[in-house]
Amino acid sequence: MNNDELILFALDASRGFGEAVSCKLGTPLSAHEERDFEDGEHKTRPLVNVRGRDIYVVQSLYGDATQTVNDKLIRLLFFLGALKDASAGRLTAVIPYLAYARKERKTKPREPVTTRYVAGLFEAVGTECVVTLDVHNLAAFQNAFRCRTEHLEANPLFVEHFAPLVREGDVAVISPDTGAIKRAEEFRRSLGAVLTRPVGAAFAEKYRSRGAVSGEALVGDVAGKAVIIIDDLISGGTTVARAAQACRERGATRVYAAVTHGVFADAANAVLGSSTVDQIVVTDTIPPLRIHDAALKSRLIQLSAAGLFAQAIRRLHTGGSIVDLLRS
Amino acid sequence: MNNDELILFALDASRGFGEAVSCKLGTPLSAHEERDFEDGEHKTRPLVNVRGRDIYVVQSLYGDATQTVNDKLIRLLFFLGALKDASAGRLTAVIPYLAYARKERKTKPREPVTTRYVAGLFEAVGTECVVTLDVHNLAAFQNAFRCRTEHLEANPLFVEHFAPLVREGDVAVISPDTGAIKRAEEFRRSLGAVLTRPVGAAFAEKYRSRGAVSGEALVGDVAGKAVIIIDDLISGGTTVARAAQACRERGATRVYAAVTHGVFADAANAVLGSSTVDQIVVTDTIPPLRIHDAALKSRLIQLSAAGLFAQAIRRLHTGGSIVDLLRS
Amino acid sequence: MNNDELILFALDASRGFGEAVSCKLGTPLSAHEERDFEDGEHKTRPLVNVRGRDIYVVQSLYGDATQTVNDKLIRLLFFLGALKDASAGRLTAVIPYLAYARKERKTKPREPVTTRYVAGLFEAVGTECVVTLDVHNLAAFQNAFRCRTEHLEANPLFVEHFAPLVREGDVAVISPDTGAIKRAEEFRRSLGAVLTRPVGAAFAEKYRSRGAVSGEALVGDVAGKAVIIIDDLISGGTTVARAAQACRERGATRVYAAVTHGVFADAANAVLGSSTVDQIVVTDTIPPLRIHDAALKSRLIQLSAAGLFAQAIRRLHTGGSIVDLLRS
Amino acid sequence: MNNDELILFALDASRGFGEAVSCKLGTPLSAHEERDFEDGEHKTRPLVNVRGRDIYVVQSLYGDATQTVNDKLIRLLFFLGALKDASAGRLTAVIPYLAYARKERKTKPREPVTTRYVAGLFEAVGTECVVTLDVHNLAAFQNAFRCRTEHLEANPLFVEHFAPLVREGDVAVISPDTGAIKRAEEFRRSLGAVLTRPVGAAFAEKYRSRGAVSGEALVGDVAGKAVIIIDDLISGGTTVARAAQACRERGATRVYAAVTHGVFADAANAVLGSSTVDQIVVTDTIPPLRIHDAALKSRLIQLSAAGLFAQAIRRLHTGGSIVDLLRS
Amino acid sequence: MNNDELILFALDASRGFGEAVSCKLGTPLSAHEERDFEDGEHKTRPLVNVRGRDIYVVQSLYGDATQTVNDKLIRLLFFLGALKDASAGRLTAVIPYLAYARKERKTKPREPVTTRYVAGLFEAVGTECVVTLDVHNLAAFQNAFRCRTEHLEANPLFVEHFAPLVREGDVAVISPDTGAIKRAEEFRRSLGAVLTRPVGAAFAEKYRSRGAVSGEALVGDVAGKAVIIIDDLISGGTTVARAAQACRERGATRVYAAVTHGVFADAANAVLGSSTVDQIVVTDTIPPLRIHDAALKSRLIQLSAAGLFAQAIRRLHTGGSIVDLLRS
Amino acid sequence: MNNDELILFALDASRGFGEAVSCKLGTPLSAHEERDFEDGEHKTRPLVNVRGRDIYVVQSLYGDATQTVNDKLIRLLFFLGALKDASAGRLTAVIPYLAYARKERKTKPREPVTTRYVAGLFEAVGTECVVTLDVHNLAAFQNAFRCRTEHLEANPLFVEHFAPLVREGDVAVISPDTGAIKRAEEFRRSLGAVLTRPVGAAFAEKYRSRGAVSGEALVGDVAGKAVIIIDDLISGGTTVARAAQACRERGATRVYAAVTHGVFADAANAVLGSSTVDQIVVTDTIPPLRIHDAALKSRLIQLSAAGLFAQAIRRLHTGGSIVDLLRS
Repeated sequence: MNNDELILFALDASRGFGEAVSCKLGTPLSAHEERDFEDGEHKTRPLVNVRGRDIYVVQSLYGDATQTVNDKLIRLLFFLGALKDASAGRLTAVIPYLAYARKERKTKPREPVTTRYVAGLFEAVGTECVVTLDVHNLAAFQNAFRCRTEHLEANPLFVEHFAPLVREGDVAVISPDTGAIKRAEEFRRSLGAVLTRPVGAAFAEKYRSRGAVSGEALVGDVAGKAVIIIDDLISGGTTVARAAQACRERGATRVYAAVTHGVFADAANAVLGSSTVDQIVVTDTIPPLRIHDAALKSRLIQLSAAGLFAQAIRRLHTGGSIVDLLRS
Repeated sequence: MNNDELILFALDASRGFGEAVSCKLGTPLSAHEERDFEDGEHKTRPLVNVRGRDIYVVQSLYGDATQTVNDKLIRLLFFLGALKDASAGRLTAVIPYLAYARKERKTKPREPVTTRYVAGLFEAVGTECVVTLDVHNLAAFQNAFRCRTEHLEANPLFVEHFAPLVREGDVAVISPDTGAIKRAEEFRRSLGAVLTRPVGAAFAEKYRSRGAVSGEALVGDVAGKAVIIIDDLISGGTTVARAAQACRERGATRVYAAVTHGVFADAANAVLGSSTVDQIVVTDTIPPLRIHDAALKSRLIQLSAAGLFAQAIRRLHTGGSIVDLLRS
Repeated sequence: MNNDELILFALDASRGFGEAVSCKLGTPLSAHEERDFEDGEHKTRPLVNVRGRDIYVVQSLYGDATQTVNDKLIRLLFFLGALKDASAGRLTAVIPYLAYARKERKTKPREPVTTRYVAGLFEAVGTECVVTLDVHNLAAFQNAFRCRTEHLEANPLFVEHFAPLVREGDVAVISPDTGAIKRAEEFRRSLGAVLTRPVGAAFAEKYRSRGAVSGEALVGDVAGKAVIIIDDLISGGTTVARAAQACRERGATRVYAAVTHGVFADAANAVLGSSTVDQIVVTDTIPPLRIHDAALKSRLIQLSAAGLFAQAIRRLHTGGSIVDLLRS
Repeated sequence: MNNDELILFALDASRGFGEAVSCKLGTPLSAHEERDFEDGEHKTRPLVNVRGRDIYVVQSLYGDATQTVNDKLIRLLFFLGALKDASAGRLTAVIPYLAYARKERKTKPREPVTTRYVAGLFEAVGTECVVTLDVHNLAAFQNAFRCRTEHLEANPLFVEHFAPLVREGDVAVISPDTGAIKRAEEFRRSLGAVLTRPVGAAFAEKYRSRGAVSGEALVGDVAGKAVIIIDDLISGGTTVARAAQACRERGATRVYAAVTHGVFADAANAVLGSSTVDQIVVTDTIPPLRIHDAALKSRLIQLSAAGLFAQAIRRLHTGGSIVDLLRS
Repeated sequence: MNNDELILFALDASRGFGEAVSCKLGTPLSAHEERDFEDGEHKTRPLVNVRGRDIYVVQSLYGDATQTVNDKLIRLLFFLGALKDASAGRLTAVIPYLAYARKERKTKPREPVTTRYVAGLFEAVGTECVVTLDVHNLAAFQNAFRCRTEHLEANPLFVEHFAPLVREGDVAVISPDTGAIKRAEEFRRSLGAVLTRPVGAAFAEKYRSRGAVSGEALVGDVAGKAVIIIDDLISGGTTVARAAQACRERGATRVYAAVTHGVFADAANAVLGSSTVDQIVVTDTIPPLRIHDAALKSRLIQLSAAGLFAQAIRRLHTGGSIVDLLRS
Repeated sequence: MNNDELILFALDASRGFGEAVSCKLGTPLSAHEERDFEDGEHKTRPLVNVRGRDIYVVQSLYGDATQTVNDKLIRLLFFLGALKDASAGRLTAVIPYLAYARKERKTKPREPVTTRYVAGLFEAVGTECVVTLDVHNLAAFQNAFRCRTEHLEANPLFVEHFAPLVREGDVAVISPDTGAIKRAEEFRRSLGAVLTRPVGAAFAEKYRSRGAVSGEALVGDVAGKAVIIIDDLISGGTTVARAAQACRERGATRVYAAVTHGVFADAANAVLGSSTVDQIVVTDTIPPLRIHDAALKSRLIQLSAAGLFAQAIRRLHTGGSIVDLLRS
């Protein structure tokens, strides 16, 4: 094997995504051992020589029936530590879904700034770079980490998916709350560039009058248009469902949602199953484990982010521009 | 002098604010020497024994005719370093206006995350705590600094000022863009608590249709109401002026602006001098050096944040709760 | 409340042990909020002012049905981080059972040195001191942590328990393998001092001839004696069961086991339920959650280590000697 | 472009020197954006991919009409930070004139050791190497920085310039105070080696008798010789002027000054314009912005240090010896 | 010279071992200057360009008549510092015998954990990797160092030496106390693999009855066998002598000792000179300076570990597997 | 014992100086154990509880017959480490004579900057403050250490000693080379203040003409005066002897030397024994172990610096001003 070639690992819980990345990258997953003990501890080690090599470890930090979020985080940290001890060269954590990205500020007194603690833990085990996709609060993420970070965007995947669907007719891109306005605007621009015609924008927000929520505002014109709701994450589903409802009420002809991370709490089955969204498009950073509602299932489309990560890894390895990747 | 008493310094450029804090605190400013050399370098040192003491240094990081933002930042850093070398106990930087708080994320490829670099510089000279007021992006600030930070809010000052003014009639609190919604909501709640009646909310935002800005949205009802526009910072003044205009058009009876930091670029004279805002209320973290328009001057009111900082310093020194201060 | 008094927290999963410590210490548990989210993340924060205070947080790192070992570790780390951010003074993690203490060396190529990674994680969130009890490998523990550590020993609890039981007749202390020889020797000396007569020593070890395990060696004389088997941890139970069997075969009259941490894997029910041990004495650092075998239950005695931790915390807080505590 | 080729930036304020280095090096200056905002803040970013590359950033830290010393320092620090964030490989700050090198010790109680703070700031943003020329106090500089430093010397430039001028007749090298003796001695040896005949040495120093300055001592013989005064920095000009005067009085036939950094305060116009120095030779690390006296101008010669820096950068990039460069 | 070739230094006190490594490696020792001053200080520097190169420095940390252990340690640390300052690339300390490896835990109150302090000192001067052989407590060593470590084993040397000697007849491998059981077991397995027949195991341990040492236990069968005693270090020699004596008494036909580091205190002459060991085999990490007893001398065999270190250095330089080296 | 009282240790090699400090301070030396092993390693530990206490450890870093400079340095470092591990509060190293202070710059290519490495070692074991006396290069020292440093001056001791001796007649203070000019000037000022009349100044320096040393310059008037030669350190003695000779030749009536650290190499016996110095005054930071020449002995006076250190420790402990101490 060539010393200059990168080494790719995927922890067991992210084997599926890791294999998809491996396939796109043309680099096989390297072998590791991941062993659980009856007392709840585990031990993980690489089974190949990693000395001085450029290493990438894939682990997506969502909880599932076998491993909690914290389990996956600790396993990733300890495996990175073991790689460092085994004299790995550059050590990059590839984290399709980065947990605790929404615990990024104190909203009540003495709350944790968990994003920063997570950053500190990665640095403590010797991580040199963290690659992830569409974090909830980009500024918090970019300030929290002092090791290098690469932030990918699902934007190009969504543009590629939706451009054929909205080839004809008027289109508007909707931010379902004010937090997603920047993300939606990016998508609107990219989509417009591909469609080579203008795309409208709108956003929704709850508003209050005299101290109580008095309505869902929808700013912008959606009547007679196909609308695409953009968000980074879908959990209970109410944000998307409400925005979709508001669009329908104001005359939208079709309603799509394009959301990077499909966290999907149990409640989402009812909320989204009965909603008026025509299509909910997510990436495969999180498998749709808790979705059982048939209506929801039939409207759910999963795009693979594996190619995006594969390209990013390739460019990180060769010193290529990630900027170009995001813009392409 | 009692070894347990705190020591308060203010650098020359912030002497005015420092004296106000000193007065409220009942602790005299301690002497320092700040000497400029012809080659553009400077030397600053404390003139009192600081060994093992609890030290607070006031410096507000705005640029003016004598010192640029960067000058003030470097002077503060080097003075903190000199205090550390002189065996200071705990070292707290008291920064009424923290520069570079808006340079907190990459909006274009390869941009700096300056907030984080600033945090790193403070830590490099041994700063243990940074106290500031209403930073632009709270999450970015809380993630950037790894030394302790205390974030004060001008909210109570504004509530105290506006409660008598809106004692009668309907009131609404306006966020002039979506970035200030959380801040405005805090103010709305506090004001409502003091008035013991509900206060309305609204927010403005530019929106786009087919790729161009097509209007200023104002979500929420302001007709027949006194409105208070809330923001963290006023520079060119257009954000506030536009929001005020939108309120007027929708029937607001009076329009006030409550903005923590009055940066006031030269352009603000024209923009705000001709605007329809009845009163622009700022704090004294930045003196209104560039305001010369008479109309603007007559409508400008400056509240002193010195008492707020004095209380925070007292509580930091004695281990009292800052949370209580923010809530009182 | 007095600023000089310590503050004691116990995370929810260790509330029982925390309350026992609190009771012995005469210091109430301070309030905290620990909230789980549907996506598997959590948020924890202190509900009292911790500014500049001497803080102790109790969390025992064993896995149970509700929280895995890794969950408990991450929760402790993030809560320590939140306390640091809330300007805690000195921050001490009180960990009755410290996980991953047996993952302390590479026994195969490229294995993790997990003990060291755990140390690094505690330091990353600002922990200043770690207090624990009878770790598996003392040298590994003392080298891994660069923050302060205090290592308590259950020895005095066992001496107090066994001295009355072996008041009459010959006694021998048994190390069930060579790894526990130092620990057993400490106990033998202490017990002898209390009984004011000599106590015998013996140890067991598997040995090999021509490449295969050919027997269980028992070095030392146990015939006609009450024997006490000493170990730091009991998991599957075979080590203790085999040592007990060897003692019986060599004429021991009574066989006791004194083991600090009762990890008790499911298999222990069968192994120890059918063993010839008269009494298995453990501490309460881990509740005996997986023990259902009636025979085992009837022979199991749990001594509380809470008083030991309470005394250690008191001495840490006042600057008293921990050495004296271990020797008393 | 070849990934192995170095990347050279020059901040706007040092564009001239940067271009000279670029020219000597045969490597074009890479593009960056440096943008000033009305509030006195700025934003700087590279416009090319720097991932994993060997980066050199030129910024000379003297103050001028547009940017103060502190402005230039902060701009350099933040640009280095942005490069690090953009995944630069090795990051070298190339600083022809390093500010605050004379603030290197406490001469009064509680004074700053600014050189060390500057070092700390460079390290805080991720600088791996600092290259500079003839710092005032070499020992202070070498102890202050913990990142790598390369210290160049203008010596070879001065030797090359003066050797033809003093080809005939007796020559002496003068240190204008005792602080420059080592530097002057280096030059004397090099010049002697080129001239292949001995060169005399002398030094000047103010001395005191009974508590007052009672005269300027000139130790060594200068009668009938061409003398070259050597120093690292010329500011007000009195040190050089006095030494020149003393040489003239003791019979020197020609008097030259060779000073690396021409800081030139305003006062230097009068002091040096009326002095008896035949030629004042400086390098181009600082442009002679404040020199307006015609007499001084006519005697001032500027040698370019760009070639020296270009050679150093080339050797740093390829792992060549800097020692050889200094000795050549 | 090729920039990619490694550079090997040996400090003067380890010149012999360094030359042996150099010879095996085919890389000449690079020149350095090591100069002692009358006041007891020293100065050491490389005499070749080390910029960006992969550097290995050999120094074995035993005390002898000219330099104490601490002298050698400080010389190594300062030379590593000088190399770092001279812009060395990767910096590896090659330490055949690592001092203070037995001071690795607190056996009495407030004792030092010296192994950890030594690790901290190496890291403080910029060491990136430490390579050593058979440390006393592997877990302590692996936890103490946070820079990379490579742990070599003399095992293959001993197997190669003893396999021909025990080609015929029964063989047993003896651990002279319980601390060496793991090491002995490794050797037993390797020897068995080469001999392609089973090798027996046994171990010795002092045991106590009623508080006094009452005998030397020897667990396992040695009658009629050639026995090989395995240990990491021989100092006074009593451990080996007693184990040999016990083996003889139980019918061993031949008794060998295989010990990595021959520290050999003066007392060892008497103890081992009169012992019944047929052959004492050590490596050359420490020269047998204090051995003068003729009987001991005649039975002492020194194997060179230089080839082992040479292979390790070669693999470290090229990214080869050290694991394979240990297993081969 | 009061928790607030400081704890003073002196390592065995500095027991004499430590006892003198203890006596002046009124604080007994606390007990420690310092044990040497036959293999050249040692183990040191405090024998008292140091938890949270303010600790001072005295060790002077000169070499003598029993311990080399490096031995003493390592012992101090490891003892500081043990104190930190034993939960010491603030940890101050009191080093009357700091070794390697003259190895503070590169005078040849690739030389070590040993002062900085020493600083790094102290920081690595957790030292928070270093107190020493008259280091060779103050700027180097102040830049090297990033932990706190306190620099004492023997100046007041020398003034107190010499004032009565030069009560009558003219006096001049001589710097024996240009490196000591600042130190001599300080002394001249202080002595003048006590004598309440002006004191002259002069300095010596070798100078060169045409490449060879051609003489010893003595700048300033000494005829008919008592002269006091000031230096930080006396080793071979030639610097002082030459300066004394030059003074005599120029008519000085009496010649004294006041030198802080009496390193005294063997050669000093001959050089100074035959010199014309009337009195050589040193402090007791180094015992005059190598002085055997009767003439030298009779002229040597040792002043105790113990009181100075005692006062510094008292002020460090109570937060008093060290500045005042230096100026008193």
